Order: sequence, then C-alpha cells, then structure tokens
Amino acid sequence: MAFHGVLRPGHAQIRVFDLDESADFYSRVMGLQETGRDAQRVYFKCWDERDHHSLVLRKADRAGIDCFAFKVMDTPTLRRLEGRLKEYGVATERVPAGEMLATGERVRFQIPTGHMIELYADKQRVGNGLGDLNPEAWREDTRGIAPLRMDHALLYGGDIDAAHRLFAEVLDFGLVERVKLEDGQTDLGVWLSISNKAHDIALVRHAEDGKLHHVSFMLETWEQVLRAADLMTMHRVSIDMGPTRHGITRGTTIYFFDPSGNRMETFAGGYQWYPDHDPITWTWEEVGRAIFYHDRKLNEAFLSVVT
Amino acid sequence: MAFHGVLRPGHAQIRVFDLDESADFYSRVMGLQETGRDAQRVYFKCWDERDHHSLVLRKADRAGIDCFAFKVMDTPTLRRLEGRLKEYGVATERVPAGEMLATGERVRFQIPTGHMIELYADKQRVGNGLGDLNPEAWREDTRGIAPLRMDHALLYGGDIDAAHRLFAEVLDFGLVERVKLEDGQTDLGVWLSISNKAHDIALVRHAEDGKLHHVSFMLETWEQVLRAADLMTMHRVSIDMGPTRHGITRGTTIYFFDPSGNRMETFAGGYQWYPDHDPITWTWEEVGRAIFYHDRKLNEAFLSVVT
Amino acid sequence: MAFHGVLRPGHAQIRVFDLDESADFYSRVMGLQETGRDAQRVYFKCWDERDHHSLVLRKADRAGIDCFAFKVMDTPTLRRLEGRLKEYGVATERVPAGEMLATGERVRFQIPTGHMIELYADKQRVGNGLGDLNPEAWREDTRGIAPLRMDHALLYGGDIDAAHRLFAEVLDFGLVERVKLEDGQTDLGVWLSISNKAHDIALVRHAEDGKLHHVSFMLETWEQVLRAADLMTMHRVSIDMGPTRHGITRGTTIYFFDPSGNRMETFAGGYQWYPDHDPITWTWEEVGRAIFYHDRKLNEAFLSVVT
Amino acid sequence: MAFHGVLRPGHAQIRVFDLDESADFYSRVMGLQETGRDAQRVYFKCWDERDHHSLVLRKADRAGIDCFAFKVMDTPTLRRLEGRLKEYGVATERVPAGEMLATGERVRFQIPTGHMIELYADKQRVGNGLGDLNPEAWREDTRGIAPLRMDHALLYGGDIDAAHRLFAEVLDFGLVERVKLEDGQTDLGVWLSISNKAHDIALVRHAEDGKLHHVSFMLETWEQVLRAADLMTMHRVSIDMGPTRHGITRGTTIYFFDPSGNRMETFAGGYQWYPDHDPITWTWEEVGRAIFYHDRKLNEAFLSVVT
Repeated sequence: MAFHGVLRPGHAQIRVFDLDESADFYSRVMGLQETGRDAQRVYFKCWDERDHHSLVLRKADRAGIDCFAFKVMDTPTLRRLEGRLKEYGVATERVPAGEMLATGERVRFQIPTGHMIELYADKQRVGNGLGDLNPEAWREDTRGIAPLRMDHALLYGGDIDAAHRLFAEVLDFGLVERVKLEDGQTDLGVWLSISNKAHDIALVRHAEDGKLHHVSFMLETWEQVLRAADLMTMHRVSIDMGPTRHGITRGTTIYFFDPSGNRMETFAGGYQWYPDHDPITWTWEEVGRAIFYHDRKLNEAFLSVVT
Repeated sequence: MAFHGVLRPGHAQIRVFDLDESADFYSRVMGLQETGRDAQRVYFKCWDERDHHSLVLRKADRAGIDCFAFKVMDTPTLRRLEGRLKEYGVATERVPAGEMLATGERVRFQIPTGHMIELYADKQRVGNGLGDLNPEAWREDTRGIAPLRMDHALLYGGDIDAAHRLFAEVLDFGLVERVKLEDGQTDLGVWLSISNKAHDIALVRHAEDGKLHHVSFMLETWEQVLRAADLMTMHRVSIDMGPTRHGITRGTTIYFFDPSGNRMETFAGGYQWYPDHDPITWTWEEVGRAIFYHDRKLNEAFLSVVT
Repeated sequence: MAFHGVLRPGHAQIRVFDLDESADFYSRVMGLQETGRDAQRVYFKCWDERDHHSLVLRKADRAGIDCFAFKVMDTPTLRRLEGRLKEYGVATERVPAGEMLATGERVRFQIPTGHMIELYADKQRVGNGLGDLNPEAWREDTRGIAPLRMDHALLYGGDIDAAHRLFAEVLDFGLVERVKLEDGQTDLGVWLSISNKAHDIALVRHAEDGKLHHVSFMLETWEQVLRAADLMTMHRVSIDMGPTRHGITRGTTIYFFDPSGNRMETFAGGYQWYPDHDPITWTWEEVGRAIFYHDRKLNEAFLSVVT
Repeated sequence: MAFHGVLRPGHAQIRVFDLDESADFYSRVMGLQETGRDAQRVYFKCWDERDHHSLVLRKADRAGIDCFAFKVMDTPTLRRLEGRLKEYGVATERVPAGEMLATGERVRFQIPTGHMIELYADKQRVGNGLGDLNPEAWREDTRGIAPLRMDHALLYGGDIDAAHRLFAEVLDFGLVERVKLEDGQTDLGVWLSISNKAHDIALVRHAEDGKLHHVSFMLETWEQVLRAADLMTMHRVSIDMGPTRHGITRGTTIYFFDPSGNRMETFAGGYQWYPDHDPITWTWEEVGRAIFYHDRKLNEAFLSVVT
C-alpha cells in the first residue's frame, strides 16, 4: 500500500472510577458495543470498526488516559518502527500478545509529554456486522449516539516540541495545523496526521505532563452532531461546548464529559489532508476562533480542565 | 510521511466539442474556477484544491478522457515509480514540464484498458483562497455547485484484471470493493484506493477500451447533493441518475452529463478505508443494489453510455 | 383560534390483503405505533401525533382507500360543517361514536371523485409520549422510519373540478398549486391546503373514481429522507421513486409501496403557505418537473399505478 | 379560508443608529433584499416573501423596536378586528395608507407590555422572484445568510398576562408553550401562535416595558443554521448563543446582534402546532433546558440584554 507504517489510532485506554456505571454510559448513551471484559478492563468498539476494540476502560482512582495506541501495517512494520524508536533514543517495551484482550504484541514507549503510546500490528477482526459480501449501508440495530469510529485524541503535556518531533521524524506524522503562543514562535498546540484525515493526534502545551484533553469519535454529519447533543441532554450528560465548529480542521463538534470527568468529543466533517499541503498557522490573537469558530473565544475549561 | 508514493488524483483531461460552451458550464454551473488557458485547453480547479488545476478541457471531435493523472509525493518518488513501471514492462514517456500549464514533468503510460495515466510531482500551488494563516472555514464567493475537489474517475475498458494488477503491484493501490460477473469469478469492476478514501480510481469491464464512465467531484454533504441536483434542474443539465446512494462505498451521488455528453458525478460521503480492511465483494445478483442502493437495479445507461 | 373549521388530516383508512403482514410492515419498517385493534382493523399513530390514530388498516380483497378523514375544531364546528354540506347538496351520514376505536361521531360524505371523506371533532388524546411538562425534544425509543405525522393524501378520480369546488366552497380549503392539461384550461391536478402547510389534500384527474395515489407521512429533514430510503432497501420495500424533490411544494420525497401495493410517501420540507398567496400553475409541458423536479419527467407509474 | 383573521407577522420596524451601516449589514450579511427607502426608513424583504417588506429600519438614537405588525386576511377583517379591539377597551389609531411605503392603512394600538402592534390588510405584492408559473425551487442569486422569511418576535415587558389575554381573546392567538416562575403560577414567558407554526409572537416578563428581545428569521435546515453561524464569524457579527436547539418549540437557533445591538435570530425547525394541542409548560427549574436545550442553563444575556 502507498501508506505504510502507522495506519491509524487503534485504541485509547481510559481510567474511570466505576466500571459498571461507565460501561453503561459508553454502551447505552454513546452507543459503543461492548466486546469483552478482563480482570480490570471493559472493551468497546464503534459500530463501523472492524477490529475488536478501540476504547478500553480501566478502573482507577483518578481519571485520565493510560495509553493511546496506533495500529501499524503489519509485524515487520512493528519491528521496523521499534527499531527506529530505539535508534532515536526512545526506550521501548514489548507487551506480550494477550495481555490486552484480542490484541497481539504491543510496543510501548513514553513520549516527551509523559504519555504512553503503543504500536501494535494485530487485533482480532470482528467485523462491522455488515459482512464483506453484498453489505447493507449501515446497521439498523445501534442505539444511542453510535459514532462510526474512534478518530483521534488531544493530549496535554509539557514538551510538545519534542513529542511533535518524535511523531514526525520517527513515525512519519505530518503537521496539519498549529497554534502559536503570544511570542509568535512557540507552539501552543499541534495537530498531526498519519493519513488523509485532518488529524490523528494533537498535542497542546500544558504545565502538567500526561494529561488527556479528549478522545474523539466520528459521526457522519452535522445532523448527527445535533442528534448527539440532544441525546446528551436526554441523558443529562455534562456538555462542555457545542454543537459548534472548530476553525482548526473545520470539523463540527461537541465536547462533553464521561461519568468520571474524562472529556470526550463527537465530531463530523473536517477536510481531507495531504502531505503536500502547507501547514495552517493560527496566531495567539485568533486562538479563540481556531478552537471555537463561532464563539471566537475559548471557554474557561478548554485550557484548564483535563484528566 | 507515512503515505508516500502516489498521493491522489491530480487531474483529468477531458475532450469537449466546444471549449467556450464547456468552460461556461464548468465555471458557472459546476462552480469550478478557471485558472488558465493555452492553445487548446482550458484549466479548472475546485475551490478547496490548492494546486493549479484538476480538470482540463481539450477541444476535440469526440468526447471522452485523454488522460487521468496522479500527483506523487516528490520528484524522487516520480523517478522511483517510473523505474518500477519500466521494470514491470510498462512503456513510459516523459512529457516535459510546461507542456501542461503550471505543471512539472509528467510520466505517461498506457494501462491495459487502453487509458493514458500520468504521474507528476509538481504543480503550481495557487492555494484555496483562504490562506494558511488564521483561515476562515470556507469561501463565500463561490457560485454554482462548487465541489471541494476532484476525487476519482471510473474508467471502462477490456482487461481490467491486468490494469488492476498494475495499479496494485506497481503503484500500491489497494482493492476496496469489487463486483463479480455471473460466473462468480470474473470481476465486472474494481474500486481501488491509494489513501483513506473509499476510492481513488475504479475500473469496469467493457467491450471497448479507453472509455470514460465518469469523473467525480466531492461535495461535503447530502444536502449539498440535493442542492447540486436542484442547480442541475435550474440549468437544465441532463441528469443520468440520482440523488441516490451507492451500495459500493456508501457514497451519495448524482450522475449527470456535461454539454459534450461526458458523464460527471457529484458525490458526498463514503467510508474511510484502510489497507487492513478485507475487500467487499458484490455478487452479480446484487449489482443493482451495489451501484444504486435505493433502486436496486441498474439504469440502462450505467453499462452502456460511456464516452 | 384564528383557524377554525377543519384542522387537519386526521386519519386514512387503507385496505390491505393481510393484516398481520401489513401491521408488521407499518410498525417495524415504517415505525408507526400500533394503538389498537378491533374486529377488522388495526390502528396506528406516528410518534409525534397526540391523537389515538392516523392510519387504519382494514383487511380486504383489494387494496385502496376506504376513507380520508379530517379533524375539525370542535363539535359545534362539526355540526356547522355538516349543515353547510347539506346546504351544498351533499348527502351526509353520521357514523356513531365508537364505531371507530377511540373516535367520536363522524360525518361521512362522498365527494364527486367517488372518495369517502369524513369529518370528526373528537378522538382520544394519547399524547406523543413526551408529556406536556418539561418535555424532551424527541423520543429515543422509535424504530424504523418513524415519521412525525400523517400529513396528506393524493386521491385520483374523475370530476376533480367539482371535488375542488366542494373543498374550497364548503370546507374553506385554499388552492395552492395546480397542473394544467395540454389544453391549458383543464386541471390535471390540484393541491389544496386548510392550514399553513403546502398541502393537506391533493386531487388528480383519472379515468376511474375513488382511487388512491398515496398517503404521505412527514419526516423532519432531507437526511431523514435518505435514511428512510436506506431502510426501505434494507427491508426490500418496493420504491417507486426517490429520493428526489417535487417541483410542486418544493418538498423532498420517496414514493414506495406497502405490501398490498398501496403507494405511500415519506417527505420532508415544502414551503409555508398563506391564503394571500397566488396559486402556482404548472403547464402540461412542465408536468415532469412539477412532479419530479430532478428527473423532469414522469415515471410510468405516476399516472397509471393507483389502488 | 379556514384560517381567517390575523394571517402572520407582517413586518417589524427596528431602530438603528446608522442607516447605511445597518442596511449594509442586513443586505450583505443577512442576505435580505432592500426594496425601498423613504425619508427615515429602509425597507427589506426575505427572498421567499411575496410582500414588499418584512423588516423596516429607522434611524434613531437608541436601538429597539418601533412596532411589530401582523397582516390580516382582508380589509373587512381589519375593520372587524379594529372593532373588537375597541370593544375590548383598546385605543386604536389609523395610520393612513402610504405612510409606510407600499402599505395600506394600518390599525395601530399599544399592548399592556408597552409595545406598539399594527394590523394591516394590504401591502404591495412584489413576488418571490420565482413567479407563479412553472417556478424553480429556489433563487440562485441570493447572498449572505438569506433566510426564507421573517417569522416571529420575542418582546419583553411588564404585564405579559394582560398582553397574552389581548392576543388570545381579541386576536385569537393560541397558547403553545409557557415558562413558569419559581412560584409555579406566574408566567415568565408565553409563546403564542396564530397559525400552524410553533410561534408567531412570544412575550417575556421584564421590569421595563416596550423592549425587544429578538426578531426571528426562518432558515430551512440545521445545515443552513451552521452556514449562518459560519457567515456571522466571517463577517465578525457578534453571536449571543448558538448554534443550538431550543427546548421550547424544538427549533434550532443562533442569536446574534445587529450593528446597533438589536438581537436577531436565525432558526430552523420546530413542530407544527394545532389549537387542539394542550399547551406545554416548563417549570422554573427547567427554564435553562427550555431556552437552550443543550447547555441547560440560561446565558447571562438572555434575561438582561434587550433593546
């Protein structure tokens, strides 16, 4: 294939206070499908995903993200990228196949913002329920918000410059958009893609390392964004912001919080990106419009509330 | 970048009977931007494209497609792919920079279905008019249908098996969907991707080589598909089919004809594809639903009317 | 209230071959709620309707429509309209309360196109399930297509001129749009409103009296029209036409057939009408665009297939 | 016609600081059509309206609303309603034909909230530009936000109970929804309809009489609401709230301010209302969700910022 290396975000493992309450939220309200449980974790996939899971909940005393994982093309690619990481001076650890349900060996490493990132090549294929022979266009039996796929995450931490370099130089991510601080030089945040998508991961500079701003799930349309917001109100989910549009990526969005206070996003839209596009830059004066295109100012929570 | 090699469809050169009438159609009704003319050709881009052109009209006595071109990552990639083509036994020709307006050297070759394909690395960047600094979400000054980008083409010809192999083995395209003939073995058509998109090119088996079924332009939403159909009626454009949905790719669509009888498509939607997805297969009995998901039968024109 | 007299279409009673098969279709695929059964009939309402039923199925050997009923403001209005009908020379019959489940006395009469029309003032209020105190925006527990309400019917018969006069002069309907025959004088069809809606009933001239072209159910958006068409394909419902737009009323639409061959419509959109609007006229040459705005020609079924 | 009496909101006359700046805003950004000027006023209509104007701007030192006018069925209706007003004890004044451009005699009176209301039967018909013979579905030549029609107004004043009674008892408006104050008895606001629409006028209790909360303009879809919000950002219009949904009426909305600080609304959706519907009541605890369905709390401006 012409795109090789890292394929896409594969799963996010999130910490929650109460597994059953959270599992109920993610299945009944978010409309994800529970695909398995082990001693400490509950596994979910979105309806149109073909692999076993894309969201993992782990019971813990504080909320946040344990790790964000990318699927790579195949095992030789995994070995090659592991080698490149080591060459680059990144300590890597192999987590054996089976430690995570339905998942092959993972290569784990910490990025300079303190987050744990994983790469893996194999996960059990369970299909999207439509089959590969004469499929229908979508599944009628979903419930709740029912996003198509887990799409990206926005992570907060200190040294986003070094983390950006690692993603770019070792894993071949491209810089799609950036927001500058008041000095006009320093990046407040960077939006990175490993595909045609407007972003696969984003990093924002923050005093504390290892923080989660949000994990994002893709909806098909702006009408589905409205429907998601309606469902959040019907289920009294705490909405942080939206429905609105981002200036960055042009996507339409709602930010909201899961029962443990982890911010999640449902979004739709955003342009197709190619590596020959020049990165888009937002100046500090326009950061409000960059993040929330209609309000043109940040809400209090955007820069401060993370888990 | 993690995707290298071929980036995307870059331009289609189409034959039309009357350059002025066609230029008027493509600018006023389709809402493309005319970006240049040379002795025989008129050049257009879609508003959100950053390169100089994606559609070229050439005056001729019969309609059809002169060539379909892909942009590749850079000049070393162009050289590498040229080498792979030659190794594979494909005759290639270099068309010098400047032969086509604002375009670098192209490597041209014929595929086994008789179509001319081109690869190039350089085309003048003219931007999408929003700039790369604090951009707005879209341009207010478009007119007509105003698709975001030229997206793919569907070509008709004899030996689609060999053409498919060439795209897959030399240029790294992946097989996304296929329709089988009554024998259950032979491909009636194949839909191929070089990206996350559900298709970048498609091939359908046909008695005559070198034929064009349609060139496709991307709209953002199903509501824009309705708007496009409305505008086609207001301008008395000949609609072939739609608005409807394709079973293949799930995209929503209208097929219509330009003043010379070349079929064009405006579409929206379709899933994101990854190379670890198993190809979807449609059997002959379900070809109607595969092509036109609601009517569940082909219209007369689909298999017979090409240029 | 400033609108008095006839309020709206209240129910259509339709003949079907097999009650159970049809009840399954209307509840599981169409997403109506079954609200009752009596000896020969099954009753349904749309989710957002507040009265007991708007569609009644009756088992019979041939498909078609038994009657189309309008709810009027109150019992004095019913008496007043009954009096006006008699004055106008229309024979009326009182059907006692309770003959139809949950329904008060009906005044029944035949219009010159051979159709039975009913007026009634009372029907049991069952609510839309959201309540009248602090309601949510919609019901999450619907299934299938789930239209908001039964909206109008299109009836085929001979003397539509006399029927039009009766609706206008006795029941105060307004003429919204009309299509002329080739002579430029005779109406092929008329679209009539008793409200702000673009139509509450329509009549088309036909050789045979008492025929049903379609009963129509309202969806909220064009995206819901697409969803309805998708569901029809998933359930292999026979689609007659659409998704498309009507020139008449500007509404977007799908025509399809129930298991007994009765044509139904799901539609969205259409303008708001007021009695100070001049009627819109379509000439015979433009009847195709009037009915199917994108195809700009009638399909074979439109003028010939009725029940 | 079955609806007689008052037909619909006919025009709002708004005070602005600078006529040229405001006229530019309402034509270029809002996309209204300027249809005339007289000594102190500029007149506008929405594209799909057939009468000469629905918004009038008057130069003044303070912003706000001069009057809100309703079109009635015909001159006898105007006389009849004038008589009912007088009987009810309301002082009425006749403003002669021609005082307002293209408008017949108006009957003007003050309601107990201090607002001036006008009734009129005649206004010059200028059409919607599509004609009444074989029309197209919409106009291609609009610009900016381009709502279909002026739809309703929300007025703030003291004695909304008496104003509500006047609208209900003299002018036949129906009560659609109401919000109660903390005592559970007193209305904070009432939403009234004279048609099938979810509201034609609304009143909210306020310390000061004669205030304008907003005048509202109708868009066709939630996607058009997004487009309107985008255009407001592109033109740096001050957005008060949205895009979001109202609990009341279910409509989707954006509130924003014109250059003089008058709040305007563009909205889409909302249910169809009939006079046999029981009014919907919102309790004080749920007023947030009633007004802004997703945020579930009022923003600061809703109860305090009026002109």
